[in-house]
Amino acid sequence: MIKVLSLLKRPEGWTRERFHRWWLDEHVAYVRDLPGLRKYEVCLTVGSTTHEGCEPYDGVAELWFDDRAALEAAWGSPLGLRAVGHSIANVSSRVVLITEEHPIV
Amino acid sequence: MIKVLSLLKRPEGWTRERFHRWWLDEHVAYVRDLPGLRKYEVCLTVGSTTHEGCEPYDGVAELWFDDRAALEAAWGSPLGLRAVGHSIANVSSRVVLITEEHPIV
Repeated sequence: MIKVLSLLKRPEGWTRERFHRWWLDEHVAYVRDLPGLRKYEVCLTVGSTTHEGCEPYDGVAELWFDDRAALEAAWGSPLGLRAVGHSIANVSSRVVLITEEHPIV
Repeated sequence: MIKVLSLLKRPEGWTRERFHRWWLDEHVAYVRDLPGLRKYEVCLTVGSTTHEGCEPYDGVAELWFDDRAALEAAWGSPLGLRAVGHSIANVSSRVVLITEEHPIV
């Protein structure tokens, strides 16, 4: 399994509440029907600590796919292109990590 | 439940492989016995895409606690202070997000 983490910051001038409402009420509808999507969660930031004082992300979407090929197929699909476009149009910063999950506890 | 996401970048001069080995072979031993830790996973970065070209994180640790009080108690414990110190001593960048998890699919 491949786990994708999408780290998003809200647009300038938006409150965190407004961005979280956008995420749950609008954006998930663009993502939930992606082909090959096995599991999908949204982690909304309610606090943060850093040792470098940079502005934190307002949340992290987590998407699971069977493998890298399934991920590429989803992103390349019409729904995938629409979902990415809807994300980029409504964030000030976006970093996407493709990861392998290691359960520890 | 509270879900903590700890985003880490490897030290300068380290390969990603070396950092991933450090994480799984050394660092998890500092974290897995934290008081109140309900679940713990490590997501190791194997690829990334961004629309801003910044250097990606090499992985994200995910830690679940019952609530904010349990999290603060864990971080304030001797084991917690030791775990945070071991993390900070072996990364070039570290951002910690405290989040609420919303399952979608």
